[in-house]
This record gives sequence, structure tokens and C-alpha cells, in this order.
Amino acid sequence: MLDYPEFSFEITHADPGSRARTGRLSTPHGTIETPNYIFCGTKAAIKGLSPAQMVEARTDIILSNTYHLMLQPGADLIAEMGGLHKFMGWDGPMLTDSGGFQVFSLGEGTMANEIKGKGKKATENKNLLKITEEGCTFRSYVDGRKITLTPESAMEIQRKLGADLLMQFDECTPYHVDKDYTARSMEMSIRWGDRCLAEFARHDDGRQALYGIIQGGVHTDLRRISAEYTKDRPFFGTAVGGCLGGSDEEMRAVVEGSLPYAHPMRPVHFLGIGRMKDVFTFVRLGVDTFDCVIPTRLARHGTAFLKGTPGETINLNNARYRHDDTPLDEGNGIPASSNFSKAYIHHLLKAGELLAVQIIAQHNVATINRLIREVRAAIPQNGLDALEKEWLPHR
Amino acid sequence: MLDYPEFSFEITHADPGSRARTGRLSTPHGTIETPNYIFCGTKAAIKGLSPAQMVEARTDIILSNTYHLMLQPGADLIAEMGGLHKFMGWDGPMLTDSGGFQVFSLGEGTMANEIKGKGKKATENKNLLKITEEGCTFRSYVDGRKITLTPESAMEIQRKLGADLLMQFDECTPYHVDKDYTARSMEMSIRWGDRCLAEFARHDDGRQALYGIIQGGVHTDLRRISAEYTKDRPFFGTAVGGCLGGSDEEMRAVVEGSLPYAHPMRPVHFLGIGRMKDVFTFVRLGVDTFDCVIPTRLARHGTAFLKGTPGETINLNNARYRHDDTPLDEGNGIPASSNFSKAYIHHLLKAGELLAVQIIAQHNVATINRLIREVRAAIPQNGLDALEKEWLPHR
Repeated sequence: MLDYPEFSFEITHADPGSRARTGRLSTPHGTIETPNYIFCGTKAAIKGLSPAQMVEARTDIILSNTYHLMLQPGADLIAEMGGLHKFMGWDGPMLTDSGGFQVFSLGEGTMANEIKGKGKKATENKNLLKITEEGCTFRSYVDGRKITLTPESAMEIQRKLGADLLMQFDECTPYHVDKDYTARSMEMSIRWGDRCLAEFARHDDGRQALYGIIQGGVHTDLRRISAEYTKDRPFFGTAVGGCLGGSDEEMRAVVEGSLPYAHPMRPVHFLGIGRMKDVFTFVRLGVDTFDCVIPTRLARHGTAFLKGTPGETINLNNARYRHDDTPLDEGNGIPASSNFSKAYIHHLLKAGELLAVQIIAQHNVATINRLIREVRAAIPQNGLDALEKEWLPHR
Repeated sequence: MLDYPEFSFEITHADPGSRARTGRLSTPHGTIETPNYIFCGTKAAIKGLSPAQMVEARTDIILSNTYHLMLQPGADLIAEMGGLHKFMGWDGPMLTDSGGFQVFSLGEGTMANEIKGKGKKATENKNLLKITEEGCTFRSYVDGRKITLTPESAMEIQRKLGADLLMQFDECTPYHVDKDYTARSMEMSIRWGDRCLAEFARHDDGRQALYGIIQGGVHTDLRRISAEYTKDRPFFGTAVGGCLGGSDEEMRAVVEGSLPYAHPMRPVHFLGIGRMKDVFTFVRLGVDTFDCVIPTRLARHGTAFLKGTPGETINLNNARYRHDDTPLDEGNGIPASSNFSKAYIHHLLKAGELLAVQIIAQHNVATINRLIREVRAAIPQNGLDALEKEWLPHR
């Protein structure tokens, strides 16, 4: 029986008026307060930022992607180098996903958006060769070789990577598939989840903990079945995955209608979702941790998160910043946010200087970490509504 | 009369067996020990590194390029933002060049190499439209507009940028021009130097100091005339510029034959030269400061400086580093050199992760700063030969 002796999740406050809560999640690499935000170190690196810069931006936890790492440099190499923590120089808590989302999305550029319910139906995923009960076969984007990923191999790879928090292997169904397909897929993800649990238990040394994933697309009844499945199995945590709808309202309704059927005492992670507005919406529905690539992805496009700004962000490429001698946000308390004018960052972007990405990325990470700290502080004070008005006054 | 009251250069030790010396160069933004190395913040940014990372790598002084900044974002904008120190967040000593080298080199890709005596004769510089006694006219690479740079405008722009140490405007003649052209060009650079001095003196507020530049190509007799010119004029420092030959031996002979005719008590800067071997060679000939883009340029190609390595560098793209779990060099005392294995950096390069550039760039800067610190310590101990054998045992 899995009992995760080196892990714990303690709920420190539960809001009587919503499902919002604060908690303390302990792992062999340290304890984080929740709600929290998990930053994406996709290929064993946060894009453009060193571990020291992540710490300076007050980051508690990061993740890395099984799919990318299994292709390059390979799980065996990372195991040989002492595991992912040592390899990338991060000694805090860490999560790896199972590879499922990328297998089903990265063959084709727009599929990732489609899974999230954005944009039109994606064209065929040419790198995804076959999905069967056994697992799925795809071509490596690195060298074209054929690879089969199964629940068992997804567990083996994540064991070699050595993160603290692991994810079961699942099928991520796109937005446009019909309900029958989504239901069959969700049932298969359940069977895959059981195989993951069995494989995980076979090698369990107490140093890792496994999350089950709620699938079921935009269908609340399917999501509810999937949520109850995760509750009934010895997972350490619960993740919400796959496509939840094409609008904020649809996403909210699906989560609201299904998450209450998951285990109430386990940490809940929301996979791949994490704009500021999402944090406020889904913390109230019981989500404990978020992850999303946008803090660093937006930075590469010159876009900075900013408290109190319509749409959450400003685009520093805009000519309006050419003469703006104000810093991004001194409230973050780090040099990236305080020591450089918007005019300087605008110049760096125009001149194609890499430093722009580094400055904005660290600012974005620091901003999101500050937001999530303030969210944690607000929950026991019944202050979420007021805090949301501060951060998103135009919403 | 120019007397640079807020500047000083004190020679603290002169080696009796060579022209090597240690010194102390004071500016309104601080004092540096010499010999020292000036890192290139070409477009008001060190490529890939923040000011804080430069400080962590124990950097004392940086430079920025007048030519690039006059085109983008423009000297007026930088003046409006409080000057270059404030704009880029560097409050230590800073140098700007005059724009001459880039005007005469950047119109055509290989011309910069040709001025340094490398490679074949460059094809015509298409952006350089006209060189006259008045100055030179060229097209902006940013927007194609026609710009005339004169000794007076080069001074005005550098005044607006606000660096501590300025350079006179000069013509940089390529390697393949004949001696007659080089002589006429050197004579014009002398007249341009006098116009720079006059313009500089007209606006002198004591916060900046001007260097004269020794030109004359590979011809020691022309270099000697140019060196004597700089000595006889009220420059604060002396710079060695332009093409010095196609080989280490030729460069050494030209400097050896001409630098003794420059002012013996002024700081000597070597423009654009700065591999490890150059530091050892030219410190012995009386050079006090170096600058070169290679510490950060090599980093962008995955190449790291390494003490005691044949050719000074290793290429981390090489498959031999795939399984190498050793750090770059713990002797540098910074996380970039100590906390990441070569295998990890190799992976980052293969995966196209920006973090690789940041790590290697900071390592390279720290390595060169350590080299120059050890050079400074070795000179009074008569230890330069032994130190060179430590750093470059294969030479």
C-alpha cells in the first residue's frame, strides 16, 4: 500500500465561504506553502533564468517535462548525473509531468492550444503514430526515431528523473473530439492510472509521490467519474488535466462541477493553467498549485505581467515606452523589477539584446510569486475579493 | 588647458625587466587597479548578463559603443534618461569608443577582421559613403538614414552618453591598404585628434577624460609618429587602435617599436584585443587595459575560456562533454563556474536553451577577471612568466 511517508499535505485554513484553502505540502526536498505556482523548466532549465535567479525571485517549486527530457538528453543520462535536481542545480521541491500532454499536442503546432480549447480544430498530429490500450507511439522531434510511451515507461522515466511529485500517464483529448471519444479516452486514462500506480508501487522507495489526473474534457459528468476514480485510488495528489473548455466560464463550470468529487484532503494541481485571473478563479474552487509556461514565454515576446494593468500585461516593444523612465514594479523587491527603466528594456528589445528576456522573465516570475504569496495571506483574512480588485481592477 | 581634476593614473609598480606595470586609475565612478579588462556592453548591455551578474563575476569596468548607441536608441534619449550609467544600471567606471572602428568596419561583414589583419581583403564597405577631412558619412544599419560623424559630433555624442573615459575620433585603416594611404590616414587621425581635443575642452566639466589613439597600421615608423603625437597633446590616456598585423609576432613588433614613444605616465588602452595570450604579451609591453568582445561572443557559440587548456578554450557543443559531470572551474568562485556540470551545459546547448549562454558568458567574464587579478598580483613578484605557464602551459 502506498503511504508516501516522506510526503504530507496539511490544510492550514479552509475558507468557509468558498473552497479556497491554504496548506503546507512537504516533500523530501522541502516544504511549500499553498496555494503556490510551479514554474516550467521545460528542458531541465527555466527559459533564460538560472536557479539563483529563480530563488532571488522567491520561487518555491519548479517542474520539468518528461517528454522533452526523455528525448533529450534522455532519462538514463540524467540518472547517471545524479537525477534532475542535481543536474539542473535546483534543490527545492520539483514536479515532473508524465509526457502525455506533449505526446498528444506537440506533433502539431496548434494542438496544444486546441487541447486547452483555444483556436480551431488542429490538423492531424503527424508525429503521433498510434494510440492503443498499451500506450502511444510517436516520432521524436529531435531525431525522428519511433518511441512508445506507456504507463509503465512513463513511471520508469519519472523515477529516473527523480522529481518529488510525479504525474500518472494519461491521454489528453482535444477540444473538438466528440463525447463518446472523450468518454472512452477518459476510461483508458483510468486504466492507465491503475497501471501507473502498480508500476510506481513496485519501485517505491518513499522519495517520490504520484498524482492521479482528472480527465473528461468539457463534460462535467465525465470529469466527475474521473475525479471519483482519483479519490478511490492511493494517489498522493490530484491533478486537473486536458481541455476544460473554450472560455473562462466553461472552464470554471467544469471544475466547479467535478473537483468536489476528488479527494478533499489531497493537494490539487491544475496542469498548464496560470494567468493571474485563473489563479483567483481556481483558488476559490479548491486548486492548490498552478503551472504555466507564460511567465517566461511572455518574456521572450517582450511582455511583462503588471499588477493592476488591464489584461494583466504590458508589451514593452510598444513605442509608448521609449521615453518611460519608470521601473517595472518596485514592489517586487528585486533588481530586475526595480533597477531598469521601461525605456531601457524597450531599447534592449529593439536592439535584440538577450538581457531583455532575462530581465522580463525574472520580473514575471517575481510578480507571479508575489501574487501567490498575497493570495496565501488573503485567504485566512477573507481578503481574496479585495486582493483581486487590487491586481485586476479592470476585470 | 585640460587637466582632468577628477581623474588620476598612478603607477604603483614598474617591472625592472620589462615595461609591465601595475597602477591605479581613478574616475568619478570609482577607481580600478591596472592591468584590467574592460568588458564590451556594445549596445548598452553586456550580451546576456545583467550588471549584477557582472559584479558577481568581479568586473571593475565596462565599455559601450558610440556607433551602435548613436543609431539606437540615440544619444539624446540616453542623455534624457540621465546618461549611460543610469540607463544601463552600471555605476562603476565606463569607457566609450568614438565610433570610428565600427564606421569603418561594420558596413561589410569581414572588414572588422580585416582591420585586425585577419582574413582576405574585404569587399567594398557599402554603408560607408564618404571619408573627407571633415569626417565620414555612412548609412545607418538600423533605418538606412545617412549620417555624418565628425570629430566634433563624436565628442558631442560621447558627452551625452556620459562615460568616464572617451576616445578621440580616428580613421581605422584596413590591413591591405598601402603605406601611403596609411600614412595619410594616420595624419588625418592626428588632425581629427586635435579637433576632438578642442571640442572636448570647449565643454569640459571635469567629469570625463579623453584618450588619444595611436594609428599607423603595421608600420612601426608611422606608429611612432602617431605615438609621439598623442604624447605631445593633453590627452588623459593613450589607446592603441587599428590594424597591427596579421600575426601575433607582427602585432608584438609594432607595439614594441612604437608604444615606448607614447607618454610613459598615462594609462594605455589596447582597443579590441584581449585573448589570454594577448594579455600576457601586451602587459609586458606596457598595456594597462584591454577590451574585447570575445568573452561574451565565444559564450554565444558554446565556447568557454579555461585555465590551462590548449588554445585557451573548450567547445561545450562537443559530444565529449555529454557525460562529463565536472564543473567548468571551481577556482572562479561563482555558481556559474561551480554549480553546473559540463554535461548539463552541453545539454542546454543541444536543447537551444538560452541559459547556456548566460552560464558560459558569466564564467568567461569571471575567468578573464581572475586572470587579470592574478596578472596584477604577479607583476610586483616578478611572477608573470610562471603565471603564463600556469594559464597557457601549451603555448
